[in-house]
Amino acid sequence: MELIRSIEKMAARSRKALEQKKIIGFVPTMGSLHEGHLSLVRRAKKECDLVVVSVFVNPSQFGPQEDFAAYPRNLKQDRRLLQTVKADILFYPEAAAVYPKNYRTCVQIEGLLTKKLCGFFRPEHFKGVTTIVAKLFNIVLPQRAYFGQKDAQQCVVLKKMAADLNFPVEVITLPTVREKDGLALSSRNKYLSLEERRQAPELYQALLVARKMIERGERNISKVEKAMKTRLSTIKNLKIQYASVVDGETLDSGKIISGNILIAIAVILGKTRLIDNLILKVKK
Amino acid sequence: MELIRSIEKMAARSRKALEQKKIIGFVPTMGSLHEGHLSLVRRAKKECDLVVVSVFVNPSQFGPQEDFAAYPRNLKQDRRLLQTVKADILFYPEAAAVYPKNYRTCVQIEGLLTKKLCGFFRPEHFKGVTTIVAKLFNIVLPQRAYFGQKDAQQCVVLKKMAADLNFPVEVITLPTVREKDGLALSSRNKYLSLEERRQAPELYQALLVARKMIERGERNISKVEKAMKTRLSTIKNLKIQYASVVDGETLDSGKIISGNILIAIAVILGKTRLIDNLILKVKK
Repeated sequence: MELIRSIEKMAARSRKALEQKKIIGFVPTMGSLHEGHLSLVRRAKKECDLVVVSVFVNPSQFGPQEDFAAYPRNLKQDRRLLQTVKADILFYPEAAAVYPKNYRTCVQIEGLLTKKLCGFFRPEHFKGVTTIVAKLFNIVLPQRAYFGQKDAQQCVVLKKMAADLNFPVEVITLPTVREKDGLALSSRNKYLSLEERRQAPELYQALLVARKMIERGERNISKVEKAMKTRLSTIKNLKIQYASVVDGETLDSGKIISGNILIAIAVILGKTRLIDNLILKVKK
Repeated sequence: MELIRSIEKMAARSRKALEQKKIIGFVPTMGSLHEGHLSLVRRAKKECDLVVVSVFVNPSQFGPQEDFAAYPRNLKQDRRLLQTVKADILFYPEAAAVYPKNYRTCVQIEGLLTKKLCGFFRPEHFKGVTTIVAKLFNIVLPQRAYFGQKDAQQCVVLKKMAADLNFPVEVITLPTVREKDGLALSSRNKYLSLEERRQAPELYQALLVARKMIERGERNISKVEKAMKTRLSTIKNLKIQYASVVDGETLDSGKIISGNILIAIAVILGKTRLIDNLILKVKK
């Protein structure tokens, strides 16, 4: 596996690969890699000629009260894991090179898409995400980029950004990888105490409750959302940010469940923010 | 010359050229081409393997009270002119394809750079410019893009955007082309009445007054700016928006003239907005 720290070297490497007609697959990450990330790399290896994984904890997508400083970093282990899945290039730029002192430009989606769900609780988050991903796309020049479904809104937002700005990149979403007890893999699971870790799979259970209701014919959104909240209400030290059933593409909420829908939950468990979701197709 | 209207076809054509190791040169225009545009194409032809000229009157860079509807359009003549300078591809996408109904994404430079000079009088203008140019860069995939110095702030803004977002594109600025009497070429010169056209070269004369003062040793910015305004004050039906001496890179104004500077003027003559500028290196 090639290790590249310099933005210029990465850009030159990608240009060369394009000239050799190689399909570049890209997996942007914040490091602290787990099976979820590795599943993206494995898929990229199947579909592309050159797989680039970036590790960059992007300061601009963290709010001022959030966990940027505490976010787990473990490049040595990331490197080892990426070797096991045969990633071709690990790109880990320095923050000072990514955002030089006089940096001023942003890429953002205007309107409600980035203001709902997680965006309501993390107002600058998606602006940080779209900006860094636009930058990385321009450096890595991928034809295919892979993201985990766990960050459902991020997937929707990045597909919209790539389409609106005509990036020659296909944004591909792969299923959430879970622990045996259902907890969605996340680098932030490391923050959980033993007791919190024991409770955390309840997010997934609440999603299953919602899915079962819908599969059995329930079409009233408030009833389903209420059932999820009731299921979560028994957990100690848990604050619900949202437990919502929304349109899978626009993330609009409505009254009646229909079409491609997203069932999504965000909570604060102790001090740790956890999110999870399921997607579902409901016949009209 | 190849004519391409479809965004997908243009993108595929560019990808193929990259795979053939061709250097793509790009001249984005709003059409109504004149010698200024043609000088950009000629330079691109010298430096690149494939020269793409886009013609697109970008609605998002016009303010609500501005001349979007009236802006001159003459594709037939543009096509003829581009053939004389041997442009390889004329790309003229449809507005509905560039900005589909649910379009939401923007690229912008935050902070003062886009709020000064023209940005003060055209608050959304540069956001429109950076967004369309980012889109066009992603479609055309140039290594070199050419812009006229007449739009001095646009050149500064686009260099900043390309650097900040890591576009693999060199933004190249070429000198303003002028009529014999000094008037900077502009598609908007067509709006001028005979009387206004006779007065319009005074912009350039005011710039020359400023340059001469500085060359003779004047270093006080207010004095130079005052001299330009005095020179322009005699013209009938002319409103000065600004007549400024600023830093050539940051566009900051100061008190003392030093380093790379930009002398820039914007006026409304009758109903037509005209801009012009000179750049100058002043020893510290």
